[in-house]
Amino acid sequence: MDGLNIRAFDAPDADSVWRVLESVIRAGETYALPADMSREAALAYWCGPTHRTFVAEVDGRIVGTFYLRPNQQGGGAHVANCGYITAQDASGRGIARAMCEYSMEFARRAGFRAMQFNCVVSSNVRAVRLWESLGFATMCRLPEAFRHPALGYVDALVMFRTL
Amino acid sequence: MDGLNIRAFDAPDADSVWRVLESVIRAGETYALPADMSREAALAYWCGPTHRTFVAEVDGRIVGTFYLRPNQQGGGAHVANCGYITAQDASGRGIARAMCEYSMEFARRAGFRAMQFNCVVSSNVRAVRLWESLGFATMCRLPEAFRHPALGYVDALVMFRTL
Repeated sequence: MDGLNIRAFDAPDADSVWRVLESVIRAGETYALPADMSREAALAYWCGPTHRTFVAEVDGRIVGTFYLRPNQQGGGAHVANCGYITAQDASGRGIARAMCEYSMEFARRAGFRAMQFNCVVSSNVRAVRLWESLGFATMCRLPEAFRHPALGYVDALVMFRTL
Repeated sequence: MDGLNIRAFDAPDADSVWRVLESVIRAGETYALPADMSREAALAYWCGPTHRTFVAEVDGRIVGTFYLRPNQQGGGAHVANCGYITAQDASGRGIARAMCEYSMEFARRAGFRAMQFNCVVSSNVRAVRLWESLGFATMCRLPEAFRHPALGYVDALVMFRTL
């Protein structure tokens, strides 16, 4: 996407990142995080010590954020895990795709051999299609593993690709 | 198993629990935890604030330990996750089976609807068979998602059952 810049998160980004996270967390439809999570708890999680956190900006405005971390410790630490959130008013412009592509390249260079998403909400059809188009396979459906605030219990997907 | 008592972990159990954890963590063959994890880090994880931790004892000696936690937060918090470790000199006596049965009943009563294991090492054949005999299904194999110290990269399984 033209004009998109992806860089490491820095402390002064906290307010902008929280604005991106807040509506998605409050909606509770796509992320397995408490809908009533506080700003402090959300930032502590998103930018936690085991996470490498990034922001995507256009003209200096933060329009997305993601983290990269080992999905497991020890013998599982060569598989990466990421979470991506695009600002609601910036969706449909390829920002999530750009963030995912960046994260895969970053993960490859950092020595990760694969990337895994543990809890992709099956009703989040746009995300599922996007990850599929980026080479992720649905390894399994976990029956009713996510409680959607409007749809009730829906399946969650484990998605995976080698890097 | 006769004479087996399962109860909540309490602070004075820390030394005994660490003795059970230590050899399994150091071996690095079955748990996705760093093989060089310190006693403090291991206990902080195993008995962490989101974990309900239990011990299994025979004649007052701790022969196993397990934790129960929500596998995800928010919309995923109705699926439980557990980790179980039996003392090496007490294996083959049904302790892991008893701990898993206890954890399922505890989870049911606590309102969990399912239980999931995220990273069962495929070479840990005894554990896979045990979980299968307790009603867990292998939902998918994650290719080479675990690095075994002797066998190299082996698959990891996602196992799941409703409660």
